[in-house]
Amino acid sequence: MLSILTLPKAGDPSREVKPEEFPALFHATEAITWVRCLEPTDADLLWLQNTFDLHPLTIEDCRNRNQRPKFEPYDGYGFLVLFALLWEGEGLETTEIHCFLMPRCLITVEDQDGPAVAAVWQRMHQARDLMQRGADFVFYAVADAVVDTFFTLADRFEDGIDEIEERIFAPQPEPVQPLIFRRRNNLIDIRRAIGPMRDAFNALLNRHLPFIQEPQLLYFRDLYDHTVRVYELLEMQRERLSNALEVHLSYISNTLNQVMKRLTAITTIFMPLTFVTGFFGMNFEHLPFQNLWVLVLALISMAIIPGAMWLWMWRARWF
Amino acid sequence: MLSILTLPKAGDPSREVKPEEFPALFHATEAITWVRCLEPTDADLLWLQNTFDLHPLTIEDCRNRNQRPKFEPYDGYGFLVLFALLWEGEGLETTEIHCFLMPRCLITVEDQDGPAVAAVWQRMHQARDLMQRGADFVFYAVADAVVDTFFTLADRFEDGIDEIEERIFAPQPEPVQPLIFRRRNNLIDIRRAIGPMRDAFNALLNRHLPFIQEPQLLYFRDLYDHTVRVYELLEMQRERLSNALEVHLSYISNTLNQVMKRLTAITTIFMPLTFVTGFFGMNFEHLPFQNLWVLVLALISMAIIPGAMWLWMWRARWF
Amino acid sequence: MLSILTLPKAGDPSREVKPEEFPALFHATEAITWVRCLEPTDADLLWLQNTFDLHPLTIEDCRNRNQRPKFEPYDGYGFLVLFALLWEGEGLETTEIHCFLMPRCLITVEDQDGPAVAAVWQRMHQARDLMQRGADFVFYAVADAVVDTFFTLADRFEDGIDEIEERIFAPQPEPVQPLIFRRRNNLIDIRRAIGPMRDAFNALLNRHLPFIQEPQLLYFRDLYDHTVRVYELLEMQRERLSNALEVHLSYISNTLNQVMKRLTAITTIFMPLTFVTGFFGMNFEHLPFQNLWVLVLALISMAIIPGAMWLWMWRARWF
Amino acid sequence: MLSILTLPKAGDPSREVKPEEFPALFHATEAITWVRCLEPTDADLLWLQNTFDLHPLTIEDCRNRNQRPKFEPYDGYGFLVLFALLWEGEGLETTEIHCFLMPRCLITVEDQDGPAVAAVWQRMHQARDLMQRGADFVFYAVADAVVDTFFTLADRFEDGIDEIEERIFAPQPEPVQPLIFRRRNNLIDIRRAIGPMRDAFNALLNRHLPFIQEPQLLYFRDLYDHTVRVYELLEMQRERLSNALEVHLSYISNTLNQVMKRLTAITTIFMPLTFVTGFFGMNFEHLPFQNLWVLVLALISMAIIPGAMWLWMWRARWF
Amino acid sequence: MLSILTLPKAGDPSREVKPEEFPALFHATEAITWVRCLEPTDADLLWLQNTFDLHPLTIEDCRNRNQRPKFEPYDGYGFLVLFALLWEGEGLETTEIHCFLMPRCLITVEDQDGPAVAAVWQRMHQARDLMQRGADFVFYAVADAVVDTFFTLADRFEDGIDEIEERIFAPQPEPVQPLIFRRRNNLIDIRRAIGPMRDAFNALLNRHLPFIQEPQLLYFRDLYDHTVRVYELLEMQRERLSNALEVHLSYISNTLNQVMKRLTAITTIFMPLTFVTGFFGMNFEHLPFQNLWVLVLALISMAIIPGAMWLWMWRARWF
Repeated sequence: MLSILTLPKAGDPSREVKPEEFPALFHATEAITWVRCLEPTDADLLWLQNTFDLHPLTIEDCRNRNQRPKFEPYDGYGFLVLFALLWEGEGLETTEIHCFLMPRCLITVEDQDGPAVAAVWQRMHQARDLMQRGADFVFYAVADAVVDTFFTLADRFEDGIDEIEERIFAPQPEPVQPLIFRRRNNLIDIRRAIGPMRDAFNALLNRHLPFIQEPQLLYFRDLYDHTVRVYELLEMQRERLSNALEVHLSYISNTLNQVMKRLTAITTIFMPLTFVTGFFGMNFEHLPFQNLWVLVLALISMAIIPGAMWLWMWRARWF
Repeated sequence: MLSILTLPKAGDPSREVKPEEFPALFHATEAITWVRCLEPTDADLLWLQNTFDLHPLTIEDCRNRNQRPKFEPYDGYGFLVLFALLWEGEGLETTEIHCFLMPRCLITVEDQDGPAVAAVWQRMHQARDLMQRGADFVFYAVADAVVDTFFTLADRFEDGIDEIEERIFAPQPEPVQPLIFRRRNNLIDIRRAIGPMRDAFNALLNRHLPFIQEPQLLYFRDLYDHTVRVYELLEMQRERLSNALEVHLSYISNTLNQVMKRLTAITTIFMPLTFVTGFFGMNFEHLPFQNLWVLVLALISMAIIPGAMWLWMWRARWF
Repeated sequence: MLSILTLPKAGDPSREVKPEEFPALFHATEAITWVRCLEPTDADLLWLQNTFDLHPLTIEDCRNRNQRPKFEPYDGYGFLVLFALLWEGEGLETTEIHCFLMPRCLITVEDQDGPAVAAVWQRMHQARDLMQRGADFVFYAVADAVVDTFFTLADRFEDGIDEIEERIFAPQPEPVQPLIFRRRNNLIDIRRAIGPMRDAFNALLNRHLPFIQEPQLLYFRDLYDHTVRVYELLEMQRERLSNALEVHLSYISNTLNQVMKRLTAITTIFMPLTFVTGFFGMNFEHLPFQNLWVLVLALISMAIIPGAMWLWMWRARWF
Repeated sequence: MLSILTLPKAGDPSREVKPEEFPALFHATEAITWVRCLEPTDADLLWLQNTFDLHPLTIEDCRNRNQRPKFEPYDGYGFLVLFALLWEGEGLETTEIHCFLMPRCLITVEDQDGPAVAAVWQRMHQARDLMQRGADFVFYAVADAVVDTFFTLADRFEDGIDEIEERIFAPQPEPVQPLIFRRRNNLIDIRRAIGPMRDAFNALLNRHLPFIQEPQLLYFRDLYDHTVRVYELLEMQRERLSNALEVHLSYISNTLNQVMKRLTAITTIFMPLTFVTGFFGMNFEHLPFQNLWVLVLALISMAIIPGAMWLWMWRARWF
Repeated sequence: MLSILTLPKAGDPSREVKPEEFPALFHATEAITWVRCLEPTDADLLWLQNTFDLHPLTIEDCRNRNQRPKFEPYDGYGFLVLFALLWEGEGLETTEIHCFLMPRCLITVEDQDGPAVAAVWQRMHQARDLMQRGADFVFYAVADAVVDTFFTLADRFEDGIDEIEERIFAPQPEPVQPLIFRRRNNLIDIRRAIGPMRDAFNALLNRHLPFIQEPQLLYFRDLYDHTVRVYELLEMQRERLSNALEVHLSYISNTLNQVMKRLTAITTIFMPLTFVTGFFGMNFEHLPFQNLWVLVLALISMAIIPGAMWLWMWRARWF
């Protein structure tokens, strides 16, 4: 589905036009335009390719999806793939946003209608002064909204990690490992999205591209700075999770040690006692069972053995 | 075995020629040619060396195989080694494809007839417009098919890793470690193939080589981009496997802890009981076995000991 | 809250002026000024933006806080974000200091009144010769005080790590893991602050900025050197903690092994003994309980079994 | 011991000359020479220093040995240290080969007569056309033989690692760890040799040195490529060993878990049974030992307890 | 304490002069001088600052110590901080040597009289031809002696690591972990000293500094090469220790597994036996204790149970 938002002249309100009317408008005027293509059909992509003279490889990428975030300069335009993230239930959902940035026009091709871009689209309808800053500024607004989805996620993860950290030294009804496992996998997924995106913005900054105006560069630097910050935040979360996992393993081993020492102590104390009672439970007639002194001896030995064992274990530094 | 596919003139259909006819054709016309050498014999290699004036070192590499993916520029041609992967039964099979790329000719030397290159060979017979784009485009088609074999593998692994991840927290009839072990070894093998291949394509891109035409460079950039994506995909899979292994180790230790606590609890409860029964099982005549109150005492102590033990363990925070 | 400290002319004492008087003063004279803005209100930020013609993005950063340490050159000034650390109770408190460095003026925007900057502010009131070295030197004094807060922290951590290292081989009343865990998390936090700060100072050094005078560069090199030193110190502490944790895990396993060997030995010795006593505790009338030689045999076997077991375990290298 | 092999003129057979005759020959003619100095005495080194005007530092290196592989350009010659490896019994033996490469002469100083260089020496006596390609080609032949020793080793290790990998999941008569340990230490040693050697060959390639002729550069690139391949091979082996070790640790823990669960099950089943038999083994006269129903009750309880325990353990998901 | 060694003219013997006489001498002649300042007082540092016009920051560094090895070029001189290491008892002692290198003069400021520098100082008094090579050569001699202290340490550690490696698979009277722990901490300390020193020497090499003469550069390259070698040596030792620790952990777990299997086997064999004897130890009158066949049955079951258990365990692959 193609929607075209155009600002014919500075000061005018922006308005939507139909694809049929667009080519004439585009070539005749200095209008600034944002073409938004949601859930693109083959016809939409063909229309885009013909109207804007796009390279077949980029159209191929839009069709196949499943790219990685990247920036590639082509003749007359820049091609960018952004990833927006959304937390759905217990998993991450990634939306690919393919952008074509030209001097007076921005094209975004999206698989589904994500809230981040939708909000910018809304804003562009209302705020008159935003669009007249140029197509590059419109792209900045889209990319900024996309990067903000990462901050939202990082905040949500922060809470999850705090909870994990509180649980690793607490006696637990259920193990903390599945939680750590899921979070680490999530972080792997996100890092895979944000790392190339950071590189793409860096490329935008340093290549002196004709479709980005000089004063807008400061905004793109800000964008790059944001991705760096997200990346460092996620890196820090990854380190904290690794720290939690490593220390937890050591702590479990420590606890196991305590448990085993107790078992050993109990066994060490009661096994000899059981032997003594077993000894005098034998039925040999020659054993002096009628002798009171032997009974006293047995009782004394039963009293002494645990104490002696304990003392010995203490001295041998079993504890 | 040498097969030579040649396109004498743009618009003509491509046709196969015999090695004997080839040299005349090659030097006389502007034909675009793909020489495919399957399971090369020494005679084949000698013919190639003499016909195209190839450097002895590259012929040596074709003979010995067992190279790594690489790109090396020589006088008048570029020498590339590609690795295509195939999943056979439970193991990976690597096919080395040695390519010589010249302005009007591509030579591929292959140890065995892999499906990836065979499909391109077939396509070149049928699709008339592909070959006339030049020898560099033919090479791009071959390399693209080769890189696609990695995507196929990565997808297959994705499933395997999903299965592993589901099993690490489930009670298991058989351990998950052998599976993790094999997958990690496979990933080591693949990374060893894709990493240098990525570097080789990058070198192709940035060296302004005479045998690659300007408009084709976008295709080679796409190729490079694909290898980067495969590499990141595999890297992500490697991290996920490491995550699974590390978390699993911690989880096993946790479970062990639970088991040991139970064993300790049972031993702690029954060992004193056994001692009491053993005590009154002794045959001393002076023990007051006929006294009902002693029996009652013994029975009461047997009732109290387990409860008291449990309480004590609870208080001492054994659980 | 805005405080403005100005040095109208070299040799004069520095004095505070009101925001209302300032713009006239600033534009008319060669005065060197430090504008300190504590807990900035929106009005303060607006005043700063208008008076010094600051870029909206930097004012935005001051308003939102939660940045990372960075350096960004703007038209006519440099924008720096520094992090000062304070140890409060058991946790780290981070104060962000946003600095605008111009040829004759330094602006610092702080969320709260930290002791590090407050001390420099005090010093600038008293020491007459410091401020006349220029706004860049005032900035150096602020940054140096900030970096010193890291050294203070590193020293405090050094003690904590020494304590941890002493405890990992000692029999412990309470486990050492929670301590290691907290320290490692603290180090992650600090490294996140110091790393980008080091990069920011490096950028200051190498960019030939108009608002830093040539002779001051040596001081900034010193500053950079300090951050490098702090970074290496923290890196070393991180490695020492990892070393402690890894070795501790191995040591615990070793201890567990000892404990289990003892348990096994005791079980191995007493189980057969218990069986023998149990055997002769059976009530079969045909068992020759009245036979003295059988009793002697039983006693001898009870004497021999533990010794034989011990010898066997010794020979089988159980210990 | 000094041996000098010289090729006076292209086409002539190469022949050995005595050190006394050499200087005259060297300065008068265009001869290509290889001076091989085995187990160098101080006199040999002095002779080399004086005859070829070598820098004292390089002679010092030859005397002290115990260098690392390196390349250092000096006035008029290049100084290279190569490491050849030999597998002796169970350990690695390293031979240092110090090479001086000049436009018409190669000097190799070796501590002991290694088979790799000896074979090249032999070949140079016989193959007439090799030496006339120049001293740089002779050096290439030596270096190639040295690098081949690494391939031999890597192959041998491959087998060892295959064996280790087969054993980690098999029940073992003897532990696999000592084997892993030795291999990893060997790999550390080899990597220490091959890494700097790769860098040295890279330096040779890229520095436009006067003592290497242009057409020979392709051979040196091949050499460099070989070292890269060895390095990657060893890196892969290192990763495979780490994989084996990590997975093995997890697998052992898994097995331990199984063992402990069995022990716990057996203890849990027999401890209550033992208590029941002990209970009725007490000698109290008031216990109704003559009552058949009590006996039946005891027998039934003995039959039910194991089954009930098993069921309980099953339900509580102990297994 | 200031000691000044000066060589007034090439060929003269070097002699010590008093600080009072020095400035005249220094400015009038071409003398080469080494000013050695041991345990510097404030007066010494002031004298140095005034006589040689040193920057306050470098004097500050000399006063505060606790720097990291570094090289910083100043106007007219280079400032270097070296670390010399000494093994005292069980710990490492670090001596900082602050060096000022000028065209005709070397100043070294040392906290304590280390043997390394003291030996060079001695040598400069005696060997007439060393000093006349220039102040840069004197510095080389000092730095070389300092780097040699690292080789001495590395050798000493080599022995310690050999011992550790021998012990990890041997049955041990005392655990090997504390040793590994100390060595790893030592290596962290040393690496922290040698790494920046290597960078400092590299900076000396590549910056075309006016106070280093061209022919001396080869000696500084040698110095740099030595630090690289030490660094790699230590890196290798670190890897060997990590290898030892990791493998040891796995080996301990393996041993623990063996121990537990034995315990399980013994428990599994004797628990049923104990039950049988306990069963026939019950005092029920209805039990057929006078029946010989029952006795025989009991004896046979006691003989069969262990064998059957063993067989079952074998079949169930418990071993």
